[in-house]
Amino acid sequence: MQKRLHHGGDYNPDQWLKHPEILADDIKFMQQVKANTFSVGIFAWAALEPQEGEFTFEWLDSVMDNIASFGGQVILATPTAARPAWLSQKYPEVTRTSPRREKMLHGARHNHCFTSPVYREKTSIINRKLAERYKNHPALFMWHISNEYNGECHCDLCRAAFSAWLEQKYGTIDTLNDAYWSAFWSHTYNDFSQVEPPSDIGEIFVHGLTLDWRRFVTHQTIDFYKHEIVPLREITPNIPITTNFMGDFPQPMPFAGLNYAPFAQVVDVISWDAYPPWHNDYECTEETAARLAFLNDYFRSLKNAPFFILESTPSMVNWHSVNRPKRPEMHLLSSVACLAHGADAIMYFQWRKSRGSSEKFHGAVIDHDNSAQNRVFKDVAQVGEMLERVSEIKGSHNPAEIAIIYDTETMWALGETQGFIRADKKYPQTVFAHYKIFRDGNAPVDVISPDKCCAEGLSRYKAVIAPMLYMMPDKLANALALYVENGGTLVTTYISGMVNESDLVHHSGFHPKLREILGIQVTETDSLYPTQRNGILYGNASYKALDNCAVLEIADAEILGTYEQDFYAGSAAVTHNAYGKGAAYFIAARTEEDFLAAFYEKEILNHLNIALPQIKSPRGVSIQTRTGNGVTYYFVMNFTDEAQTIQLPTDMCDLISGRTLAKGQQSLLPKYGAMILK
Amino acid sequence: MQKRLHHGGDYNPDQWLKHPEILADDIKFMQQVKANTFSVGIFAWAALEPQEGEFTFEWLDSVMDNIASFGGQVILATPTAARPAWLSQKYPEVTRTSPRREKMLHGARHNHCFTSPVYREKTSIINRKLAERYKNHPALFMWHISNEYNGECHCDLCRAAFSAWLEQKYGTIDTLNDAYWSAFWSHTYNDFSQVEPPSDIGEIFVHGLTLDWRRFVTHQTIDFYKHEIVPLREITPNIPITTNFMGDFPQPMPFAGLNYAPFAQVVDVISWDAYPPWHNDYECTEETAARLAFLNDYFRSLKNAPFFILESTPSMVNWHSVNRPKRPEMHLLSSVACLAHGADAIMYFQWRKSRGSSEKFHGAVIDHDNSAQNRVFKDVAQVGEMLERVSEIKGSHNPAEIAIIYDTETMWALGETQGFIRADKKYPQTVFAHYKIFRDGNAPVDVISPDKCCAEGLSRYKAVIAPMLYMMPDKLANALALYVENGGTLVTTYISGMVNESDLVHHSGFHPKLREILGIQVTETDSLYPTQRNGILYGNASYKALDNCAVLEIADAEILGTYEQDFYAGSAAVTHNAYGKGAAYFIAARTEEDFLAAFYEKEILNHLNIALPQIKSPRGVSIQTRTGNGVTYYFVMNFTDEAQTIQLPTDMCDLISGRTLAKGQQSLLPKYGAMILK
Amino acid sequence: MQKRLHHGGDYNPDQWLKHPEILADDIKFMQQVKANTFSVGIFAWAALEPQEGEFTFEWLDSVMDNIASFGGQVILATPTAARPAWLSQKYPEVTRTSPRREKMLHGARHNHCFTSPVYREKTSIINRKLAERYKNHPALFMWHISNEYNGECHCDLCRAAFSAWLEQKYGTIDTLNDAYWSAFWSHTYNDFSQVEPPSDIGEIFVHGLTLDWRRFVTHQTIDFYKHEIVPLREITPNIPITTNFMGDFPQPMPFAGLNYAPFAQVVDVISWDAYPPWHNDYECTEETAARLAFLNDYFRSLKNAPFFILESTPSMVNWHSVNRPKRPEMHLLSSVACLAHGADAIMYFQWRKSRGSSEKFHGAVIDHDNSAQNRVFKDVAQVGEMLERVSEIKGSHNPAEIAIIYDTETMWALGETQGFIRADKKYPQTVFAHYKIFRDGNAPVDVISPDKCCAEGLSRYKAVIAPMLYMMPDKLANALALYVENGGTLVTTYISGMVNESDLVHHSGFHPKLREILGIQVTETDSLYPTQRNGILYGNASYKALDNCAVLEIADAEILGTYEQDFYAGSAAVTHNAYGKGAAYFIAARTEEDFLAAFYEKEILNHLNIALPQIKSPRGVSIQTRTGNGVTYYFVMNFTDEAQTIQLPTDMCDLISGRTLAKGQQSLLPKYGAMILK
Repeated sequence: MQKRLHHGGDYNPDQWLKHPEILADDIKFMQQVKANTFSVGIFAWAALEPQEGEFTFEWLDSVMDNIASFGGQVILATPTAARPAWLSQKYPEVTRTSPRREKMLHGARHNHCFTSPVYREKTSIINRKLAERYKNHPALFMWHISNEYNGECHCDLCRAAFSAWLEQKYGTIDTLNDAYWSAFWSHTYNDFSQVEPPSDIGEIFVHGLTLDWRRFVTHQTIDFYKHEIVPLREITPNIPITTNFMGDFPQPMPFAGLNYAPFAQVVDVISWDAYPPWHNDYECTEETAARLAFLNDYFRSLKNAPFFILESTPSMVNWHSVNRPKRPEMHLLSSVACLAHGADAIMYFQWRKSRGSSEKFHGAVIDHDNSAQNRVFKDVAQVGEMLERVSEIKGSHNPAEIAIIYDTETMWALGETQGFIRADKKYPQTVFAHYKIFRDGNAPVDVISPDKCCAEGLSRYKAVIAPMLYMMPDKLANALALYVENGGTLVTTYISGMVNESDLVHHSGFHPKLREILGIQVTETDSLYPTQRNGILYGNASYKALDNCAVLEIADAEILGTYEQDFYAGSAAVTHNAYGKGAAYFIAARTEEDFLAAFYEKEILNHLNIALPQIKSPRGVSIQTRTGNGVTYYFVMNFTDEAQTIQLPTDMCDLISGRTLAKGQQSLLPKYGAMILK
Repeated sequence: MQKRLHHGGDYNPDQWLKHPEILADDIKFMQQVKANTFSVGIFAWAALEPQEGEFTFEWLDSVMDNIASFGGQVILATPTAARPAWLSQKYPEVTRTSPRREKMLHGARHNHCFTSPVYREKTSIINRKLAERYKNHPALFMWHISNEYNGECHCDLCRAAFSAWLEQKYGTIDTLNDAYWSAFWSHTYNDFSQVEPPSDIGEIFVHGLTLDWRRFVTHQTIDFYKHEIVPLREITPNIPITTNFMGDFPQPMPFAGLNYAPFAQVVDVISWDAYPPWHNDYECTEETAARLAFLNDYFRSLKNAPFFILESTPSMVNWHSVNRPKRPEMHLLSSVACLAHGADAIMYFQWRKSRGSSEKFHGAVIDHDNSAQNRVFKDVAQVGEMLERVSEIKGSHNPAEIAIIYDTETMWALGETQGFIRADKKYPQTVFAHYKIFRDGNAPVDVISPDKCCAEGLSRYKAVIAPMLYMMPDKLANALALYVENGGTLVTTYISGMVNESDLVHHSGFHPKLREILGIQVTETDSLYPTQRNGILYGNASYKALDNCAVLEIADAEILGTYEQDFYAGSAAVTHNAYGKGAAYFIAARTEEDFLAAFYEKEILNHLNIALPQIKSPRGVSIQTRTGNGVTYYFVMNFTDEAQTIQLPTDMCDLISGRTLAKGQQSLLPKYGAMILK
Repeated sequence: MQKRLHHGGDYNPDQWLKHPEILADDIKFMQQVKANTFSVGIFAWAALEPQEGEFTFEWLDSVMDNIASFGGQVILATPTAARPAWLSQKYPEVTRTSPRREKMLHGARHNHCFTSPVYREKTSIINRKLAERYKNHPALFMWHISNEYNGECHCDLCRAAFSAWLEQKYGTIDTLNDAYWSAFWSHTYNDFSQVEPPSDIGEIFVHGLTLDWRRFVTHQTIDFYKHEIVPLREITPNIPITTNFMGDFPQPMPFAGLNYAPFAQVVDVISWDAYPPWHNDYECTEETAARLAFLNDYFRSLKNAPFFILESTPSMVNWHSVNRPKRPEMHLLSSVACLAHGADAIMYFQWRKSRGSSEKFHGAVIDHDNSAQNRVFKDVAQVGEMLERVSEIKGSHNPAEIAIIYDTETMWALGETQGFIRADKKYPQTVFAHYKIFRDGNAPVDVISPDKCCAEGLSRYKAVIAPMLYMMPDKLANALALYVENGGTLVTTYISGMVNESDLVHHSGFHPKLREILGIQVTETDSLYPTQRNGILYGNASYKALDNCAVLEIADAEILGTYEQDFYAGSAAVTHNAYGKGAAYFIAARTEEDFLAAFYEKEILNHLNIALPQIKSPRGVSIQTRTGNGVTYYFVMNFTDEAQTIQLPTDMCDLISGRTLAKGQQSLLPKYGAMILK
């Protein structure tokens, strides 16, 4: 098959089976917008198995055939993210139990007990039937498992599974007691059966337990996923498998209910659902774009490979606080913004707006008017056109010399931690604040997990940034130390390296390996009330410090910046330490963007000579790079509300327009304009 | 009996049976304030039937006799809104079950299962006993059923009743599935027993189901009401029946838990409980008065007939955020404000403050000092005096040439709808904003339901205003079309005509009949973040647009106003279309008051030559009209904090003061002053 | 034993039993900071009885011995505030049931049913074992019962106990019905078994019931406490008993879940846990200090005797919204601030930071670094040093000529009351606002309960201040009347004297005895919206009135101040009445601080010639007095951020520095400096 980027989306013909004329229109419209890939069958269980053991695949046969007929591909979904009413009615065990031990009623979606043997059996049956029926179908391109896995269950089955998981992990209850520091408040357990999931009506203060519960939820979700794919791997061993992950806005962070780092190991292709709130009133468009970029970089870095935008909207969603349509040109720009960071697929939720229920006003390629005349349809067609023109980028990579660590387990642990500024430690905000400096400077960045640091090492990076890396198991500390020793540059901050993997504070309150690398000791952390400020003197300029100010004792480090006020005025606020062949920096306080920009400009971008695109562009025009087959592609995106000019170091060709831009000349990029240059 | 307006209130002698001196004082005080009508027996079940089957009517006999002795009338209540402890203890099925399936404990009030056969049996017994005992009592004037019906129950009995109601409505489960668009998320039902009421621990996203549940709650409440009145109709066929409806502030809207449109069909007299927050710090008094007027017009329009203010306070309530007493003169003014819109009764909750429990600080005619000397008592006596002087207005009508549609079902549906500005679509706020323009212009308005539009037609009105009429069943669209075709003028807006009665989006996203009447098609709706604005150019002036801006495609309509900004700048924002003998206007965006004032002044008040009172009055002095027996009464009310002058087109007599005001002269209306002129 | 002030804190060796080196360090560090008293065994049940009936006291023996070895004392705790997992697992009845009737799971702490016979039996066993084992141990100094008693249980056992308590209190159900005004809403009970605890899923509107439930919770908590101490009293009759009470910030008030007034009767020594939020951004340090002072005065006044600060932090806590460390010098200053108001013990939660679980970041003497080098350790050592130097103050008293009444039952009742400004009547805020005037003027104050007024009389005070004393049983009214009659001066305000002990409004709405004493009648109360203001003219100056303005009818009183606006402009706002040999003042409206300062300066401090320290000091420097053995000690504390000077009327010696300060000279007090002068 020719190299092509994927374009398409969630397609739910099962909602329109009584409307054959609509289904016919779909096939016509698909070709008009050059859509080639469709996620089919998500939530279609009731349509596929309307009564237990009674299967009705005929409609799906026809949909698959129709899509195949114009060369389209199907990402066939297991329908298990919502179950038919008969299943809940006949087998009540399949519904979840809430943390307050309420038995949930049938309804909504993503609501199955992930332990229930009955539910696992029923999913096995339907998944096997699908695989058997479509294993040789020409449209079958990939499997899509369930949908946006999330949630947890506190039923007896899950509680027993949790106990068993703990026993497997700890071996003896005494080991668990040590890990949980359970002598505190007389919480010592005598045996594993006493350990129950955290609940507002029971235990929420044993942080090690809460962490383990979240790990178990990830484990059990993956276990369920693995159970789902058994028949697929068996029957269709060559068909890749994905499931759609989620990213949150406005604070950009991967969905916090699961840890995607281990989950990524067991999927073949990373997919995620991207819904940035474009055109809001609390930030400029470039800021929204940076948040999207952060998440794209996170999901790409999971497997260090191109990924799928499996869901996005051609226009607006229906679940933001304000659901604003994309302005003209934004759909193309926002699609390029994903390609730029490694996406090989731009797909939509949803192909067609439903007439009823909760998502009827969610943006779609086909609106309620069932017409090719509206603005959104035309925007989608324009993107379809563009994707065909730029298809050579498919499979190309995003090389980065800088990595930023984002740790879901730190996110969990800081969420529970009582101390500092209690309600919100602003972990994801802080990681993003550091990320954004590089984004603004057009420096490519990988956003990686501690798992990856430990498994693959960090030697590929010139610099590793680890803001607020609160949880620091020995393994991670050693990986960082090895990295710096061998010549790497590490930057870390306040509230880093404090606890081990069980949320137990390291002796001395700061991981000894970090002390060694950084040449400092944190002696206390001053948390500031919202309106309070300290200052940092760095490089002859003064910057604000807020929220958290760590007070340091210097062992070997060089002091680069000092506090300006309070009882720790004059003491170190920014340090540098030579360690092995590398260097380690510590930023002791939360600052505003101006400090981070000055610091990273000097100590990282200039000092380490980070490679940047040689295209001159004003602020708000972002330039990202992909490389493949020896070619470098520059994605030039104008996120400002005005036309901007750029200047090229050499003649280049814009794949989107087909135009050639001459070296040194000022080239105009209209408002929301995008180019892909090579 | 002579023609007299009703004055009185909720009277609870059952709280004072151990204090005969208090009961004696009551009868004396009643006559002093010229009170003539009392709601008696609300919540008196434990006093009437202290143990099952043991009845103690003697105290009530005496109360009825005493009231009759001075010519007073009793609105006798069924005591079913709160039940005795023995009833809950002996028959636990009578207590409600919450949406989370919690069995509620005995307590509070309005807490009975409305399906429970036991509760229905017990209410039948007590109601029958009351009717039998007092059927010939001279004081018996009207029945008051229960109190402020509200709430719902999720017990097994109610769930079965709901299933049965659905089966009755839809016939087949397939029809229901189509109506609910249940193929979405695999929600297809196999039979009616699977359909459960919406719950946070079950289903809340099937909007058609949620709508049906609310309809069922209204249905079952009415069914319970009908069950309550069986013995009353049988034994006292000539005694009218009412039950007190509720209105909410500050956003003025009828209580949203029930749809009063069908409920109004089965009561003889409309009553409502009016508690405007006078003298607050977030709006001027005229604004509070306008909100009260809206509700008065809504309740009057339910039967197009005079109604009862069955509850109001002579001073303050105890459940507002701030419980402020009425300033001097406000009690009379606020009472006239109700008469002006069609009330024939000014009654209070409560006659006497209780010594204990939750309402002990709620305003009352008789305060804890049991005295005729305090300010409130004197204010009430002044109103009693006034009501006698103006009694000739009784039964007169409020003619209106303009109708505004308020639809409880649209309120429900938009409350659930995900999309637009999600948290609050501001439906009642918008209806009120349109209403207020006419109120400010002293133009009488009916506030009507779609039920009424369909049942009675709209031909009596020169103009019908339908802001945000989201739900548009064919029947309603046809009624509107017929109205315009025959010469009527219709005004509607953004977010109108989108869905049918099941909350299914109309094909094309906009009811085809509306397209035809209006000569436009809505192609998309731009929702704006809170601080974002567009502008509308209309009649050479520029107005702000906010929140929602529909983008239009013009078929036949004339463009009266255009957008000023954004990608749809220059496109139509206000349109007019000639249709049949009538005209239809569309306002595409939410605006502020200035636009609505300019628009309605020009297109409706002037163009349609709406009749207005010929009394010259400054802003803040409201003038309303009632007519009866060929006489027109003008209710002139000064809601400003200063004295104002008015000027009459002819000599008129003020029924309140007895003074005659000369034509053309400037007549002074003191702060909070009121006149009823003829 | 020599006279010494207590210094030490909660010590939890049970968390470190696997770390003998840590336990050895503890003993070393204790002596370094001159700590002499330790609360041991709180939450140690699982360490003492790891399986039912299997006791492991050996570790505790060793801890007791080690502490005794350097002359330290142990406050030995019963471990009952948290129970081992085996106990919950084997006897599920011991866990609480929530007000919504949910059975709580094992977890957290303070979660036992206080009625459960099983739990009482198990606590008896462990308490008896402790007493038997350590009755003769030289370190045993005091018993600490449980920890921070709080919470309630709604299980069947507790509900039955509540019914029995009610029957005991009321005798007949009819008496209860009268007290609850239960005829309201048909709430009449037929027998005690029908009366259930208040619940959101049942009854919350019967205010008399809610009050009784809270009284029962206090009763049952005390009953549980009494049960706990039986074996201790029996075996160690000479060892005093305490339990730690709690105080809340920022609105300073004793923990509202219990009434400490009756609880104080059954403990030997008052202890409380003091956690003021120093260095916040919403008030100056002097304000925080005043709040702490209020609570110290409250807890001292409970028994009119020196008390224990049983918990405080040497640095920060971990559960404030922002957890800020104490600045240099603040730890000593804040410790002196407690001594100044009657503390004889400065103890900490916690001796050592745990490595895990919810309190791992709570400040401690020993930080995670296990070092004597950090700032906090040194601050604690400085306080240890200071306490030794000033030990002669031990046992000295705080004489006060002024009493302010704080009533927990009024707090409860106003919390439920519907009326006025509904969400928050600001009772504790108002009591504190009055208190603060005297605090600012260095006038010593007792903060007393109505219980105390009735039991002991008020004759010792020159003035009694009773702001917003809503609940006024006859007994209290009589005590106040007797006090004034005999020459006392009473000040009271709006929302006082309204209800009896069952929250039943007094006839006339204002206690007749108060009318008599004050020579006024309250005719109505105007509640103002947040931005509304009235004014008061008092002594030729104008002051703002807000929130609540009572309107008065004058009988005999003299008018000292009048309202400036609204319909009651010119009427009395401040009154004085001569009654017997005394005087009574009424402040009719809430005011700001300026009015209270002017009023109390004139009418109380000057007029009654209240004794004040003769040391000249600027605002922000607080001076408190203790006297003992004929010596007066002046605690001089600079809560400002700058150095201040004071001037003495005579030569004095500073016990802290050992310096003598000369009469008349300006003596410098550094920022956060403190002196104890004699």
